Amino acid sequence: MNNFIFYNPVKIVFGEDKFYNTSEYLKILGKKHLIIIGKGSVKKYGLLEKLESMIKENGSSYIILEGVKPNPVIEKVREGIEIAKKENVDSIVTLGGGSVIDTGKAIAAGYFYNGDPWDLFSKDIKIENALPLMVILTVSATGSEFNPISVIQNDALKHKIRIQGEKLFPKFSILDPKLTVTLPKDYTAFASVDIISHVLEGYFTSDDDNTPIQDGFTETIVKSVINSTFKVLNDPENVKERANIMWAAALGLSGITTAGIGKFKFENHLIEHALSALFDIPHGAGLSIVIPAWMKVNSEKYSRKFYLFGKNVFGIDGDKNYVVKKSIEELEKFFDDIKSPTRLSFYGIKDYEEIKKNVIECAPTRNLKIDYDYISKIIELMK
Amino acid sequence: MNNFIFYNPVKIVFGEDKFYNTSEYLKILGKKHLIIIGKGSVKKYGLLEKLESMIKENGSSYIILEGVKPNPVIEKVREGIEIAKKENVDSIVTLGGGSVIDTGKAIAAGYFYNGDPWDLFSKDIKIENALPLMVILTVSATGSEFNPISVIQNDALKHKIRIQGEKLFPKFSILDPKLTVTLPKDYTAFASVDIISHVLEGYFTSDDDNTPIQDGFTETIVKSVINSTFKVLNDPENVKERANIMWAAALGLSGITTAGIGKFKFENHLIEHALSALFDIPHGAGLSIVIPAWMKVNSEKYSRKFYLFGKNVFGIDGDKNYVVKKSIEELEKFFDDIKSPTRLSFYGIKDYEEIKKNVIECAPTRNLKIDYDYISKIIELMK
Repeated sequence: MNNFIFYNPVKIVFGEDKFYNTSEYLKILGKKHLIIIGKGSVKKYGLLEKLESMIKENGSSYIILEGVKPNPVIEKVREGIEIAKKENVDSIVTLGGGSVIDTGKAIAAGYFYNGDPWDLFSKDIKIENALPLMVILTVSATGSEFNPISVIQNDALKHKIRIQGEKLFPKFSILDPKLTVTLPKDYTAFASVDIISHVLEGYFTSDDDNTPIQDGFTETIVKSVINSTFKVLNDPENVKERANIMWAAALGLSGITTAGIGKFKFENHLIEHALSALFDIPHGAGLSIVIPAWMKVNSEKYSRKFYLFGKNVFGIDGDKNYVVKKSIEELEKFFDDIKSPTRLSFYGIKDYEEIKKNVIECAPTRNLKIDYDYISKIIELMK
Repeated sequence: MNNFIFYNPVKIVFGEDKFYNTSEYLKILGKKHLIIIGKGSVKKYGLLEKLESMIKENGSSYIILEGVKPNPVIEKVREGIEIAKKENVDSIVTLGGGSVIDTGKAIAAGYFYNGDPWDLFSKDIKIENALPLMVILTVSATGSEFNPISVIQNDALKHKIRIQGEKLFPKFSILDPKLTVTLPKDYTAFASVDIISHVLEGYFTSDDDNTPIQDGFTETIVKSVINSTFKVLNDPENVKERANIMWAAALGLSGITTAGIGKFKFENHLIEHALSALFDIPHGAGLSIVIPAWMKVNSEKYSRKFYLFGKNVFGIDGDKNYVVKKSIEELEKFFDDIKSPTRLSFYGIKDYEEIKKNVIECAPTRNLKIDYDYISKIIELMK
């Protein structure tokens, strides 16, 4: 095991109808909240209205920032910071999924930063302070509800970059699985791809055998998400299975599966971020295109892990080469079964050189070095 | 999944030689520390001396409370509170295993309580405040380094009771696996029994199928601890395997395997606490006597879980009844293999009625009701 520091002080409030207990946590955060939402599904299903009434019952006030896009952009962060400063809010409350949370985190940090908030992403600036943040989750995917990471896109530069810092942990995350049952089938599938990708990025960081607990946790999460995803796609209102996915998503990037695995590379995310920055496709859909290709190119390097993955997650028996190959096929088949795309052609994307350029350009923001030959091999298999 | 709140703000500093980086965390806790140690192994191996020199280099001061016993007692807590008040310390630093940590937590809370500290254990008093606590771990077993629980014994009453409260979380826990390599073989075995017991208490709380992630995490920890224990018993200085056990122990009662499983009963611990309170035997040794007997009495009630346990942890194939029975045999065989006792006769204990009385008497402190017939059946199989 590698040395590590594990620290995650988020208070997770998990369970059916926990949304309706939000008042007591809102009170702790102050008297004036900036509510952040996406494109309106929280209005459609009455969640925003309910949140507003809970704030009013507390004798508190709020302003709403709406219109956060699925791939959240720095313009919205700038807009939010301006409002937060002008209205002198005490806290940020995000009602939505990962894009809303990440926007909220960037606003929370940018509020105390003198300068353009994109600096926090593009330069190596320590986040010294941030407004307190509450998450009310409606889409389980990114795990942002249980970590101190924010990923934001700069449309002008076509860069999608992440920041991280202890001040960005949400104070409270309300995880009420009932709030996720209205998520459409395609986005339910994309979300599951995202969850699986997070734990696998850590798993395929090394081929060593010195992290059996972390590896077992990852295999458990992948297996569990696969089972529950099939069930919710057949029965979208199955709260029990939605709950299972919700907890898997939160754990997925909480640090618990990755503590001790060493510095991990997140290469699949680097490549996917190029896709969503360039073509504005859903992040999970991009990942199901990237992952099988990345795996095929890297299967020899991590053959011990791919063998375990095939054996423990998919129950594949046989000799090592067979299990390794079959494990990748099985995962790709799962993506096909849940109708998450596995080729760029699904979106008619053919700008291969532009993708490569973006990946090579953004790699240093993750302390990675990607060479042209390597990324070309992966893109070839994504076509 | 049941509703739950998950909150664990301990900062874990994990890795080889991390003990030698303790200074920076000590500084954060203040200028005057109360160091708590056990019966002297930390002196023998030079750890106390090193800690003292790190504190001096910080320009800070300290007092030492020594002599905490493996089953920690309330007298020592009283003594520690008196010293802490008289010397006006800023923080508590425990250098040792679970008994030292639990004593430290009770002192930290008792410092702010006006009254006898046993009240905190025997009455239902909320812990409003506590001194900040740093853990430097030398024995991985109880998981106290990563939770807000303290278990203390009252010798006069022969009661062993636990308290729990957010204020009791350590601020920092230094987990340096090198500090655990000198642990003797018998205590290494008892420690592993303790770790396994913690996760299994949660696992066998319900026979439902709605916590697949939590169940998979538990199976992973048990499997991993079994593998690593055999390795360290053959090669006590194997830091890699000690590290694995160390992380398993910390996770074991951190809340991560039990979030969502509902209220769990900890019956094995209730029964074992009677044994260590009455006969002063090591906690882990008591557990390896209790667990197989408890399992045999409860195997039908949790037959689905025992089947999974046998299949996923021990790789047992066959029909359900066979796997259930065999899974208990395999765990008992593991206890035998590592020389942790599985019968009361090992210690010549024959006071069966006294054990039953203690269990029935202490059950309400855990909100349990244990009837005479039920505990008699279990004791019968422990003889």
